[in-house]
Amino acid sequence: MEAQSTTPAAVSLGTEITERIDRLALISADEGAITRVFLSPEHRRAADLLLSWMREAGMSAHLDAIGNVVGRYEGDRPGLPCLMLGSHYDTVRNAGRWDGPLGVITAISCVAALHRRGRRFPFAIEVVGFADEEGVRFASTLLGSRAIAGTFDDSALGVRDRDGVTMRDALTQFGLDPGHIGAAARAGREVLGYVELHIEQGPVLEAEGLPVGVVTAISGATRLVASLEGMAGHAGTVPMPLRRDALTGAAECILAIESYCRARPGLVGTVGHILAEPGATNVIPGRATFTMDIRAAGDTGRKGAAAELIKAIQEIAQQRKLIANITITHENRTVACADWLKAQISDAVAAEGYRVLDLPSGAGHDGMAMIDLTDVAMIFVRCRGGISHHPDEHTELADVEAGARVLLRVIENFQPKGLQADTQT
Amino acid sequence: MEAQSTTPAAVSLGTEITERIDRLALISADEGAITRVFLSPEHRRAADLLLSWMREAGMSAHLDAIGNVVGRYEGDRPGLPCLMLGSHYDTVRNAGRWDGPLGVITAISCVAALHRRGRRFPFAIEVVGFADEEGVRFASTLLGSRAIAGTFDDSALGVRDRDGVTMRDALTQFGLDPGHIGAAARAGREVLGYVELHIEQGPVLEAEGLPVGVVTAISGATRLVASLEGMAGHAGTVPMPLRRDALTGAAECILAIESYCRARPGLVGTVGHILAEPGATNVIPGRATFTMDIRAAGDTGRKGAAAELIKAIQEIAQQRKLIANITITHENRTVACADWLKAQISDAVAAEGYRVLDLPSGAGHDGMAMIDLTDVAMIFVRCRGGISHHPDEHTELADVEAGARVLLRVIENFQPKGLQADTQT
Repeated sequence: MEAQSTTPAAVSLGTEITERIDRLALISADEGAITRVFLSPEHRRAADLLLSWMREAGMSAHLDAIGNVVGRYEGDRPGLPCLMLGSHYDTVRNAGRWDGPLGVITAISCVAALHRRGRRFPFAIEVVGFADEEGVRFASTLLGSRAIAGTFDDSALGVRDRDGVTMRDALTQFGLDPGHIGAAARAGREVLGYVELHIEQGPVLEAEGLPVGVVTAISGATRLVASLEGMAGHAGTVPMPLRRDALTGAAECILAIESYCRARPGLVGTVGHILAEPGATNVIPGRATFTMDIRAAGDTGRKGAAAELIKAIQEIAQQRKLIANITITHENRTVACADWLKAQISDAVAAEGYRVLDLPSGAGHDGMAMIDLTDVAMIFVRCRGGISHHPDEHTELADVEAGARVLLRVIENFQPKGLQADTQT
Repeated sequence: MEAQSTTPAAVSLGTEITERIDRLALISADEGAITRVFLSPEHRRAADLLLSWMREAGMSAHLDAIGNVVGRYEGDRPGLPCLMLGSHYDTVRNAGRWDGPLGVITAISCVAALHRRGRRFPFAIEVVGFADEEGVRFASTLLGSRAIAGTFDDSALGVRDRDGVTMRDALTQFGLDPGHIGAAARAGREVLGYVELHIEQGPVLEAEGLPVGVVTAISGATRLVASLEGMAGHAGTVPMPLRRDALTGAAECILAIESYCRARPGLVGTVGHILAEPGATNVIPGRATFTMDIRAAGDTGRKGAAAELIKAIQEIAQQRKLIANITITHENRTVACADWLKAQISDAVAAEGYRVLDLPSGAGHDGMAMIDLTDVAMIFVRCRGGISHHPDEHTELADVEAGARVLLRVIENFQPKGLQADTQT
């Protein structure tokens, strides 16, 4: 049985991965916290550490033209197309240690385990640590995966960070050539598929009592800003029937968004920011501005929901004699995980003895860029309380092991799309 | 008939008052706007102008120990108790020209009209321009009227303005002696009652099509700050049923406050300020903080409403698994206008040919302090759109005239409390 042959390695994998997560977490711009942004000295130190682990794992490894670390473990013969694994190793400010690094380090440890056993496959394995997924420094996300997918937009090179440094200058100072980013791009024929392991960053696996889950899609998002204009007035002198209170209108919109999304499983809607103006205790708000973030596993569902909610906001405004001004600020398509890859991940999860739970990813990931290069899929690992982007982000050792076992099994049993067509329905 | 004898004078009064309002509005700390705060050079210039108008009107006039202007028009013989009239002549920042000055200037013009006709009464008339009603400079309101009522709190002298100047030093620099504020206090036996004419600062008279109204009470106010604690989370990864969104909880509270007050005429409730934290588009708010301002014409009604709304907020929080933290920040008693004074104002309004409309004052006024000295009453004058504390604040000439005619008639027909007891029911 495969399960028995991988068990001892997987147990040691979990410990090795957790220790490496802790080591990588020490590389930070802030003492006592974790902040590692694109093209920083910390980026360089983290890259060097990851490259050394890749080489230890039997891979050839290099830093590419955008600052990604790329390790390659050849297959039965050199030059075969690869199964690409990875995640990102940049962080938000004051981050947790698991978001991103778990996927890179788990993939490296899986390859190391296979290397120790001398295993080779009829495909190569590549592990990528993406240099910038969070987009903290230049307010532009997925820079690393876009470069590999060949969709990097050169106009981003002129964007400045908060200190006024352009991305072009930052690349040069880092020792990279901004004119050669195109060289990081991979051809579709070189890559059989992309599989990313990542912490869930949400509470679903914890609520379901499962260490791992199979991602169905990376949800698209529609974001808007709505501004309601009413009439400011003295809190003491304007009777209720004569008011045109913009904030009570916004409150009605917020509850409408909540109840609409509650009634439709898989849809999430959030008002994260609100401003009432003028904002004094004794003044009726004349203007209220709020954001809305809507996500769903499908583009059609999300766009339909956004359209209906915009209509609801407009109707609430009209009933209250407010003027609604709504601007869509962000529209990201949904990236569906490939059925054939998902099926292989599901088989691995079931073989490890876990119930197979499909769930969408509400957060964005590098797969959103990789889809332009190859088919993508993701494995989610449970994290405590669903907390992420926070120092309290945590994954239990047992769950790290469970994720690593699943990924190792996916690699060992991997069937490229053409080859598995006759064995899968 | 009295009406015929006052008509020609009242017509000219309206024009005189409006012209003086415009002249006083030119005295401002800001070019092109109106800002006149306590103990400023503008305060001094405005005081000098008002004192000159008082003297022109046949009054003896002086600046008192807190910076109020006080004019006295003797009665049939010197030293009689007075009917006190007035309002304030300080302003908020970027104010309108009518809030306060209309009451001071109308009273001066009424006395001037009586003086021109050689009228004397069995009581004196005093006109007071209060130095600080708005409380802009030292964040402490009603300083002028408290000094006259004998309730000035000496501990306020240590309060600093935003430039770090104490009230004590500001008084000294203005040429006043902080040790003599007590000398501004009046004895109850010297004052028969206090009547203030003021713009409504609300939309009720406009909605009713009336130039003037009779104030029933200066509404008390209860203010609180409510903070709801839930759980922050990623807008994409936390399904709706697993959320503890503090902002949707706050939205439900805001609508509960609105519908509770809408169902109870005379009660007004306002949420003027709200903060959702952390406040990012893609983060579920973990905390929401909002203010509530509740006013009613009676203390019992207001306190009962506040208690019921606090209970409603707590219940909403409990249902949503949020932790509510509620702090009452402000509790001002209601000041009822004296029935005997109100009756005389109502008679004057009716004699001028207007329907008598009783309405509460939702805004605070100097009467809140004067009640500790004597009985108080107020006449409201219609202002355009209910707008106040704003450069657009406006009162039509015809309404200025109507207000002046009513006040003049109140003076001419004034019966002190003891004397009118047998003619009024």
